[in-house]
Amino acid sequence: MPELRQNFATKEWVIIATERARRPEQMVQHRERKPLAPFVASCPFCPGNEGLTPPEVLRVPASTAVPWHVRVVPNKFAALSREVEPTRTVHRSRRTVNGFGVHDVVIETPDHAQVLALMPDSYVAEILRVYKTRYDELSLDPRIAHITIFKNHGADAGTSLEHPHSQLIATPVISHQVRERFQHALRHHDDFGECMFCQMLEEEMEEQARVVMTSEHFVALELFASPAPFCTHIYPRRHMASFGDVSAAEINDLARMLRTMLAKLYHGLKDPDFNFTLRSAPAENFGVKYFHWYVSIIPRLTRVAGFELGSGMFINTVVPEAAAEFLRKVDVESTESAAAAATQ
Amino acid sequence: MPELRQNFATKEWVIIATERARRPEQMVQHRERKPLAPFVASCPFCPGNEGLTPPEVLRVPASTAVPWHVRVVPNKFAALSREVEPTRTVHRSRRTVNGFGVHDVVIETPDHAQVLALMPDSYVAEILRVYKTRYDELSLDPRIAHITIFKNHGADAGTSLEHPHSQLIATPVISHQVRERFQHALRHHDDFGECMFCQMLEEEMEEQARVVMTSEHFVALELFASPAPFCTHIYPRRHMASFGDVSAAEINDLARMLRTMLAKLYHGLKDPDFNFTLRSAPAENFGVKYFHWYVSIIPRLTRVAGFELGSGMFINTVVPEAAAEFLRKVDVESTESAAAAATQ
Repeated sequence: MPELRQNFATKEWVIIATERARRPEQMVQHRERKPLAPFVASCPFCPGNEGLTPPEVLRVPASTAVPWHVRVVPNKFAALSREVEPTRTVHRSRRTVNGFGVHDVVIETPDHAQVLALMPDSYVAEILRVYKTRYDELSLDPRIAHITIFKNHGADAGTSLEHPHSQLIATPVISHQVRERFQHALRHHDDFGECMFCQMLEEEMEEQARVVMTSEHFVALELFASPAPFCTHIYPRRHMASFGDVSAAEINDLARMLRTMLAKLYHGLKDPDFNFTLRSAPAENFGVKYFHWYVSIIPRLTRVAGFELGSGMFINTVVPEAAAEFLRKVDVESTESAAAAATQ
Repeated sequence: MPELRQNFATKEWVIIATERARRPEQMVQHRERKPLAPFVASCPFCPGNEGLTPPEVLRVPASTAVPWHVRVVPNKFAALSREVEPTRTVHRSRRTVNGFGVHDVVIETPDHAQVLALMPDSYVAEILRVYKTRYDELSLDPRIAHITIFKNHGADAGTSLEHPHSQLIATPVISHQVRERFQHALRHHDDFGECMFCQMLEEEMEEQARVVMTSEHFVALELFASPAPFCTHIYPRRHMASFGDVSAAEINDLARMLRTMLAKLYHGLKDPDFNFTLRSAPAENFGVKYFHWYVSIIPRLTRVAGFELGSGMFINTVVPEAAAEFLRKVDVESTESAAAAATQ
């Protein structure tokens, strides 16, 4: 029997389509990725080609032979420009803000052939600290209303560049979707005196059916009303509205969990294309009691079609509880030690 | 200079990314589609294979040698089931409705190789009348809250079946997105005493920059804050909240405009994958003064990536005014008469 489930936080309905349901195993990818070289002479993100990017905003220096660990540069084809002052125009039904904003690229490693899912946890922590540094810096700019940090992995996730990288876009407006979800969270807090995400986490921890893994500071779970197969959220267990409030210990813990979850997807589903995004409070709402930041990982296993575009409702063909069970069983450590033994 | 534009109706912001902008011509597709046979023995939608679909709900009989013009059948792999009564369950943060609903397939023609963009206008009118018949019937069912009519053309638009078809999904709930847009429209009406869509249409007709074509009863235009290249809306000029209120003359006029707009995309962009969807008021809101139904055509020319998923904001790389100019110039009639002359 199919089931409609409502996302508690966003109020969006999802159809869990059991009549056309697929077992989690059927989502394993069969595409062969071409093997990448660790250095590509024409790649603007490879070491030695630093001159091909706009001047660097931030660099994590390396302690060894490699020239650097992580670099942040302005996107050469930025969606927004930092050269203007944001100015709003309202003319009858037409509302615009000129294109002020910041669009960074975070080059995650000098190694062209590396993937985040297989990096050491400590290296992923470096990248997260870079996110936080830029997030904190840009949050202080009064022209910036909201910051989105995201990664596109693979062509179906919207990237054409192979070299591992993520991005940050800071906008002079708060998106309608973010504003609107804030209103739901605020209303819940006003009605029940609690953060709706904290409540949901408490219930998920009691029920366990959708929890994939837990650590000292974080929980990774499949959403009850997951809009797509294997859509995974990572929540801090401590109430925090903003990613900017994360502690040093929490960053290290998050790095381990994010890396492990990406590795579970990588080994379990054979390197699917995916996006991840960090959803945090807008700067003007730092510290609020009613919102809770999180990381959302969205494997791109299915296509959005006309029903989704025409209704805003999604059809999910993998039952979230089955996806959670599948991911719990992917043993990253033994898969990787077996692979390491095989190549020795 | 990039520009952020706010959709007047939905309040969603879009980044018109002029720094990475493409000319409309750069969106012309270069993929070769394999030629289709007019009859495929294994296709469940081809004539003679009527037994492969669930029992027919509706048929438009043919006047000539072909067995039928249009058939409506339940989707064999329906996302929802008409066999249950909708029952709502609320258990703490988990809200569900069991999977009651209707999922129809509209087989648009017996000809496997046909495409909607190249059909006679009168044939498209038959299909629209079928939509209206099913829409009217299902709107009377008190268990149904909302009906979405949509078409998926091509793999990037989410279809694997070649035979021309569209679909209808009727749900026991109103999606959050639809509910929320209704609230904007209602508030606008309360503030200004007018339908926000009627106002927007009046302004677009005065300005003309984004209007692609007009007819006695309809207007086709590129949205000012278009979320994606060539995203086109067709609005009735007369105020109507529901597709169910459309008159016989209006259906014929809409068929001509929809067919012409699809042909402009087909000839101008070389048969891009696309979705279209009919956005109409939920049954409980038929007749309201503040909402206006429309058809939305969404060519699938770009990929949604992490920024869009993480913020709900879209980046559009084709300026809507340039897209409108490009589409105005595609001369469907002379393209088709030249093609007809060449094959004679």
